[in-house]
Amino acid sequence: MSIDAKLAELGITLPQAAAPVASYVPAVDCNGVLHISGQISFAEDGSLIKGRLGEDMELEAGATAAKRCGIMLLAQIKAALGSLDRVERIVKLGVFVNSAPDFTDQPKVANGASELMQAVFGEAGRHARSAVGVAALPLGVAVEVDAIVAIRR
Amino acid sequence: MSIDAKLAELGITLPQAAAPVASYVPAVDCNGVLHISGQISFAEDGSLIKGRLGEDMELEAGATAAKRCGIMLLAQIKAALGSLDRVERIVKLGVFVNSAPDFTDQPKVANGASELMQAVFGEAGRHARSAVGVAALPLGVAVEVDAIVAIRR
Amino acid sequence: MSIDAKLAELGITLPQAAAPVASYVPAVDCNGVLHISGQISFAEDGSLIKGRLGEDMELEAGATAAKRCGIMLLAQIKAALGSLDRVERIVKLGVFVNSAPDFTDQPKVANGASELMQAVFGEAGRHARSAVGVAALPLGVAVEVDAIVAIRR
Repeated sequence: MSIDAKLAELGITLPQAAAPVASYVPAVDCNGVLHISGQISFAEDGSLIKGRLGEDMELEAGATAAKRCGIMLLAQIKAALGSLDRVERIVKLGVFVNSAPDFTDQPKVANGASELMQAVFGEAGRHARSAVGVAALPLGVAVEVDAIVAIRR
Repeated sequence: MSIDAKLAELGITLPQAAAPVASYVPAVDCNGVLHISGQISFAEDGSLIKGRLGEDMELEAGATAAKRCGIMLLAQIKAALGSLDRVERIVKLGVFVNSAPDFTDQPKVANGASELMQAVFGEAGRHARSAVGVAALPLGVAVEVDAIVAIRR
Repeated sequence: MSIDAKLAELGITLPQAAAPVASYVPAVDCNGVLHISGQISFAEDGSLIKGRLGEDMELEAGATAAKRCGIMLLAQIKAALGSLDRVERIVKLGVFVNSAPDFTDQPKVANGASELMQAVFGEAGRHARSAVGVAALPLGVAVEVDAIVAIRR
């Protein structure tokens, strides 16, 4: 099954790949390894998912925000490679969670992105990960996720 | 001398490699480069080393927490590669220190992990590094460290 | 035009590559990919650029601090490779901005480093990036930036 078919089965529609806010690019292919810029959390309607875990956002909403970052990563990967079928392996996700000092469930938030990758790519979606709580994120979003992806040759 | 012998000489016992809390994997080999998930600080007895530098944890305890993250990284590398002798180079450590806003000694904390790598691997343990202070970490731990490791072929 | 000539045209003088504060190295070449340690913000006179965005530092000063991190990255790349002409591509910048909880313009701060790379390397300077707000940074600096660089062979 193609990854596009898998996305359809999962009911996931890829958004337009977001343009970088600034003077950088969404993805760089370095010797067959794709480095994707940190993607911030956008809702399906294109609005920003803002908030801080442990302050004004619940865990479930945080996990949804992380999933939406993952969906934007997919959109960026597809834009960079032409087809998601060229993904050999999701290698690493770096998950940054906008966190109040006493919020300690960053892994459960990050699972929103991690479970997406596994659902979409199966074994090839099983990745290494770091998940940390940061003081602030661009435009006040709840989650930012960057990625390293191995490209099939 | 094998790395296992070196560990014995240093009096370091590797713990059971911690299972990921969630839907990701401890390490991914991408074209001979091993990406290892962020490891959080566990004490020798398996309990979490919790705390925030500049608030309720002293510098020395923070460095010990970073060293313990490093030891868990070694356990993960060994579990992934079968033997630590397959490490060609510790390439990069990403060190995240749970920090109060006025704590600025992240490098000294991170040295706990960096000095370990050099003690264990010698020249091959000398790595690039970033060390930053974060607002919060999973389960309230003091330190999280991820790594990139080149594999001998 | 050589990159050194380009730097001269831009009026940029590279500082002495800063020695690591601790037990790690400024850069590691891993199979033709250079991983550079996080560089903190130093002013032209060698003093630290300290501060926290949203608290005691304005946006423009933050962007300058990020540019200075970028200039120190260039100094480290040159020290590691002998010549900046060996840079094939700036692959990724990781930008950590010392941020008060309500500061959300990390991308504009990070642009100080990103625009520098594009000015110096042109197309080869267009990189992937993540930019996040952290609670604290080493020695109280305003910005820390690490980098991944592909080396020409």
